[in-house]
Amino acid sequence: MTFLDKITTAQRLSNSLLCVGLDTDPAKIPQRLRAAVDPLFEFNKLIIDATKDLVCAYKLNTAFYEAAGEAGWAAMKKTIAYIPKDIITIGDGKRGDIGNTSASYAKVFFHDCGFDAMTVNPYMGRDSVEPFLQLPDHGVFLLAVTSNSGAKDFQYLKVGKKYLYEKVVEKALRWNVNENIGFVIGATKPKQLLSIRKKAPGVPLLIPGIGAQGGDLRATIRYGCDKNGAMAVINASRSIIYASGGTDFAEAARSEALKLRDEMNRYREEFFHIH
Amino acid sequence: MTFLDKITTAQRLSNSLLCVGLDTDPAKIPQRLRAAVDPLFEFNKLIIDATKDLVCAYKLNTAFYEAAGEAGWAAMKKTIAYIPKDIITIGDGKRGDIGNTSASYAKVFFHDCGFDAMTVNPYMGRDSVEPFLQLPDHGVFLLAVTSNSGAKDFQYLKVGKKYLYEKVVEKALRWNVNENIGFVIGATKPKQLLSIRKKAPGVPLLIPGIGAQGGDLRATIRYGCDKNGAMAVINASRSIIYASGGTDFAEAARSEALKLRDEMNRYREEFFHIH
Repeated sequence: MTFLDKITTAQRLSNSLLCVGLDTDPAKIPQRLRAAVDPLFEFNKLIIDATKDLVCAYKLNTAFYEAAGEAGWAAMKKTIAYIPKDIITIGDGKRGDIGNTSASYAKVFFHDCGFDAMTVNPYMGRDSVEPFLQLPDHGVFLLAVTSNSGAKDFQYLKVGKKYLYEKVVEKALRWNVNENIGFVIGATKPKQLLSIRKKAPGVPLLIPGIGAQGGDLRATIRYGCDKNGAMAVINASRSIIYASGGTDFAEAARSEALKLRDEMNRYREEFFHIH
Repeated sequence: MTFLDKITTAQRLSNSLLCVGLDTDPAKIPQRLRAAVDPLFEFNKLIIDATKDLVCAYKLNTAFYEAAGEAGWAAMKKTIAYIPKDIITIGDGKRGDIGNTSASYAKVFFHDCGFDAMTVNPYMGRDSVEPFLQLPDHGVFLLAVTSNSGAKDFQYLKVGKKYLYEKVVEKALRWNVNENIGFVIGATKPKQLLSIRKKAPGVPLLIPGIGAQGGDLRATIRYGCDKNGAMAVINASRSIIYASGGTDFAEAARSEALKLRDEMNRYREEFFHIH
């Protein structure tokens, strides 16, 4: 199954474009779980149990697991193994290094950890990205326009008549022989989202920045989906996994995920006539 | 002690600009060490014992340690703890993420692991870099011009009359309130090295690409040093740590490190009259 097929299937089965970000911070895990042998995994397990029928993907920002040292790395791998196989797993590590080092990262994250996709930083160019593109059933979300304020410092610099992020998208599409490149584009930037979707009509877009960061969900669906109302993978992390800080955190996460999925589906119906 | 003081002291004490890259690959560790409880650490320990009087810094590319899973992460931390305090330790992770995530990375690498400096990718801009700049005794080497072939894809794009990498250097210097920003610039690019040294006369430059990657050492010293013949931190990894694949690997590493340090010092004498 190709990477695009995996996403198509995951979005059809769940009837959802929602990706839940398992950016799990040990300090925010409810008290009753902290005594568990592996609190990070136990928290994730309960969030996954509560949301797995509502999502097309889970995204794990590797920083949160590295922050917990060796135990965190183990918890990350256990979490990926626990996620049902028909849901996409995205390792949000924003890596990128010289070719042989990127190849090592690709092996670690795809083979050893079992992620379906990784986020990759484009700054080091083609040979830093290509090792992540070798397996047609595994994909890359290359950073294009990020959701943070610093995005303007370099991504919006004008290179001739184009923005740097547009050059990133155009060049990367030429490397896309296995059709497994996607882009990261923040929901806080609807104009840029539209511009990227026009340049890359069929590729998956990983869209963070709704929820805690305040991106507009209706515009995100309208501009971020492909012509079939799919291929947008829309991430919310904190607003879901910390919807409640109490013992009802899993139920609260489900209720928030359901609300987001249904809201997305209403906009998909509005713009793409999907029922 | 500020970050610049730390580098100055480390370079004076060792009379060396050499940084040894501990990019330790388990598959390349000599047979007799593979039975050790912690082969990665044992290999590093012997390399450090054999070279510590010849270097100003050690650089650990985190990819190599992540590749060995939980045991690799532990070996990385043990290695840093083993390196004498007057030698700079650089975590080559090329990280960079939205502000709160970069803050988590800074905590992990500076506080939990004990690195003195980290390499950071500039693509996400100011708020992705600043969390690494909060501690004046810890520093950042921001990627400017990398030594790989893909460097040309984006780093050399023209933004008005300047190259992207020049914009990176110019902007980053404005964030340098704690005087703890340096840049990564490949030894394979002497022209760009000169251009960056002119823009940033006093900052530390981390220069990979001599040794296995073929950069010109004489030009690297000439253009990479500050006016005192210092502040260039010149990295060699594979050519030192794998100088011999046999049981004499530590002696061979010492001999290669000595040769490089002395060659650098001959050029420092030639261009900066340092004896």
